[in-house]
This record gives sequence, structure tokens and C-alpha cells, in this order.
Amino acid sequence: MERPDRNLKQAIGIFDSGIGGLTVQREIKSLLPYEDTIYLGDTARVPYGTKSQETVNRYSMEDAGFLMKRGVKLLVVACNTASAYALGNLRDRLTVPVVGVIEPGARKAVQVTTRKRVGVIGTEGTIKSMAYVNTIKSMDPEVSVHTQACPLFVPLAEEGWTDNEVAFLSAVTYLHNLKREAVDTVVLGCTHYPLLKGTLRKVMGEDVNLIDSAEETALEVGRVLMERGLKRTERHGPAEHLFYVTDSPDRFTMVGRRFLGDELGEVAQVSLEG
Amino acid sequence: MERPDRNLKQAIGIFDSGIGGLTVQREIKSLLPYEDTIYLGDTARVPYGTKSQETVNRYSMEDAGFLMKRGVKLLVVACNTASAYALGNLRDRLTVPVVGVIEPGARKAVQVTTRKRVGVIGTEGTIKSMAYVNTIKSMDPEVSVHTQACPLFVPLAEEGWTDNEVAFLSAVTYLHNLKREAVDTVVLGCTHYPLLKGTLRKVMGEDVNLIDSAEETALEVGRVLMERGLKRTERHGPAEHLFYVTDSPDRFTMVGRRFLGDELGEVAQVSLEG
Repeated sequence: MERPDRNLKQAIGIFDSGIGGLTVQREIKSLLPYEDTIYLGDTARVPYGTKSQETVNRYSMEDAGFLMKRGVKLLVVACNTASAYALGNLRDRLTVPVVGVIEPGARKAVQVTTRKRVGVIGTEGTIKSMAYVNTIKSMDPEVSVHTQACPLFVPLAEEGWTDNEVAFLSAVTYLHNLKREAVDTVVLGCTHYPLLKGTLRKVMGEDVNLIDSAEETALEVGRVLMERGLKRTERHGPAEHLFYVTDSPDRFTMVGRRFLGDELGEVAQVSLEG
Repeated sequence: MERPDRNLKQAIGIFDSGIGGLTVQREIKSLLPYEDTIYLGDTARVPYGTKSQETVNRYSMEDAGFLMKRGVKLLVVACNTASAYALGNLRDRLTVPVVGVIEPGARKAVQVTTRKRVGVIGTEGTIKSMAYVNTIKSMDPEVSVHTQACPLFVPLAEEGWTDNEVAFLSAVTYLHNLKREAVDTVVLGCTHYPLLKGTLRKVMGEDVNLIDSAEETALEVGRVLMERGLKRTERHGPAEHLFYVTDSPDRFTMVGRRFLGDELGEVAQVSLEG
């Protein structure tokens, strides 16, 4: 199933540790319908969320290298852990614009918070990295940021248990402290979490802003393409979307349908080694 | 933190994709108190349960190689996915006895089942591999085997949510079909699951046999050592237990305490590459 010769000219490159970044791909596709995308899920080494900074950095450089070889015009780091640990490094070394998933969500939270009390939920790695806290504080030092790691949300999303009683009780347990802190805004700091939005809304109530970092990242990609004169404004024929994974495509394809519906096309396995 | 020069003579080598195998290490230590153990958790590449056979085979050979270099007298594959995919390969290539976690649990199930209706729960990879079904059927073709993947149980165990309402509802959902099939015996086909035994007992009821594959594997290790004349029957000073991981030890140490209590000693990070 390898197709190393298949390159899209001037596509948007997107990588994630696995499947979660598909929520970002979906938003980019919907917001920028003329753009081609190439998605890489490093499924042989997923998850990044529990791995060390050094390891995540190395993996991220390899993921980016794969996409750069395919001539992408912009790189999206659609993984919160990789954005937290490796974004600076990638920006230093790459010649194309690099968009992470943390800054866009953080910026939106700072814009919409009414009482300057923001909650952030994510994987253990993302929360431990303090990336959201530091980014939000750098944008507005007066915002108080309350964080909560929610390790069960990723397996719940992948299992398709997004609005059952198990998901609801897990959310009640994890969000208890954020509710007590009376945050007015919650950043969904993991690309899997948009699938749980309905349940999170039920637990947090109607008055709390839920920031979908996948949506915000797509908006940021649109802005950067426009600024750099890289945005496609027309095309002949439909946009193309390629999907690569580093382990067997079976599970990615099955769970990916849950993320994208029927829109997930052919998925090819590749090796990042050598 | 590397200590490549630290070898125990004639220890029992144990490897797992991560932390789950600690339940096996705990049982071996308790049953065979004179034996030294060396544990390797491949935490940089965890989990194996969702990865392909080819990938799991390659990782398992590297894990085994690391322990063989340290002069172990017996190798325990304390990971169900690796036992399902790589056991034959390891036995072909290694000069020491190799014990997996599937055969011992399967054998015990065949021995204790009263109505020849056995349930097996495990990760997606273990269940999909059909390893338990094939092993049980090869021991007694008349046993009907009913399987159920329970992807949330590993994150629940690692989160320490082993006897709360979320764990209970997850178990009710996953075990529904096994109860309907009226199995009289359930094999806990994943090394994390012994931590959920209380909840599984509550859901399945008192009359169903729960087979703890960690316990059965330790008994098998004792039998093999005895048969081969490799069992230590005395020693001066306490037995030693070394722990190695392939990613940062922080999370392993933290979650490992949940598995072993205070007994988890120093954990060193190593690289399997090169």
C-alpha cells in the first residue's frame, strides 16, 4: 500500500501522534475547501501524551520531515503534546509556516473570557507541560488558568463512548474542580475532545464558553495562508486529501470513520525510519 | 540514570509494553521469593495492544534482546499482545525457556470451567489475535469461548479508577454479552485487569470463576524453573529487583506505585536502539 511517489503540490501538511488530529483536518477541509491536505498519524508510536519531551521532540522532527519531503506549503502540528514540546524547534528548523494547536485555542480563550477565569483540559503530557498556562499568561497575565488532565477522554472518544453514562460520569469527575473554580471558559486542549463536546456542554452548563482548538487552529491556518499569499482561491476538480499512518491502517480507518464519517479516504502505511 | 553494568546473575527476565506486567512481577516475587527479577517496560512505544503483528514482533525481539544480554535464565513475556504475536518467534530464537501470559490462563480456564463456557476479556489486539480462543480450543475443543475487548480498562487501571462508578458502568457495558452467554469462567486476558478484579467480581457475581493470568503465569514460571533445575532454593540476603523503562521513569514510577504499592524500587531509563 506504499505510494511514496504520490505528492500533492502545495498541500497543507498535518501530523498527529495518531487519530485525534483528524478533527483538525476536518475543520481545515470545511473552512478551506480548495486546499489539498496530507495527514500523517504516527500510529506506531501513539500516544505522545505520556512520553517525555525529548522523545516527543525526536518523533515530531521525523513526522515533519516526512511531510516536508512531500512539498507541503504549511505544517500543522495537530497534536497538543507535540505543539507543547516541539513547536519552537520545528519553527527554527523548517522553512514553511508552522501552526500548532495551542496558541489558537489560548488566544480565543483570552478574547472571550468574561471574568478572566479560564479552564484547560487535556492529556497528562499537555497539562504537565504547562504550555496552555504559559501561553495564556503571556497573552494576558491577569487571566487565572485552572488545568485538569482527563486521561480517560481519549479512550472514550476512540471507543465511541462520547455521550453515554460512562462519558458523563467521567466528565463530572474530571470537571468538578473547574466548576468549583467558577471558570467561564474551558479550552478543549486535546484534538480528541471535540467529539465529547455534547457531554462537556451538559456538565459545564450553557453559560460556559467551550473553545474547540480544532476550529481555532483551522481559522489560524486560513489567516496565515492569506498573510503569506499562499491561499488557493480557485481550483479545477475537487481537493485531494491523503492519509498516511506508521502502523497498520485497519484501526485508524475504523476509528477514523467515527471522527470524519464516511469522508475518510484510502489510508496508506509508511515507515519513518531511515 | 543508566546502569548498563548492573547485571543480576540468573535472574528472571520480564518484559511488557509498559506497566501492566508489574502485576506479573508482583505475583512472581510473592510466589518465588528467592528469585531476582529484571523488568523491562517499553514505555516509549506503549501500547502494543493497538499495533500490528509485524510491529509487535520487532519490538518484542528488541525487548528480549535487552534482557538476554543481562543473562536472565528464563524470560516472561508479561504482555498479552506480545504473547499472542511473538511467543513462537521468541521460543525459536532464544536459548532460555520463554513463558507467556496466555497459555497459563487458558489452561486454568479449561481446568475449572464447569459448563465449558469460557469468557475472555482483553485489549483489542489480544482479542483480535484470537490467541486465547485458539489456545483454549487446542486444549479442549468442546469449550465454547466468548471474547470481549475492553479498551477502557487499561486507562481506568492506570488512572486508579478501579472501583468507582465509572469503572462499574464500564464493566457492566463490556461484560453484558458474556453474562448473556452464561459463561461460568472469565479469563482476565490483560495484565492490567487484576486491578479491576473487585469490580469485575461485582458485575459477574460470586459464581463465576475469574482467572487472574498474572497469578497463573507466576505458577507456570515456578513449574518451569523446577523442571529445568533452575529454581533457587536458598540465598544470602534479600532478592534483588531491577526495573528498566524506555521512556522517562516519572510516570512509570508514579503509576507503578499504584500497582505494587511502595515496593517499586529505583527505575532506570535505557535505550533499545543500536
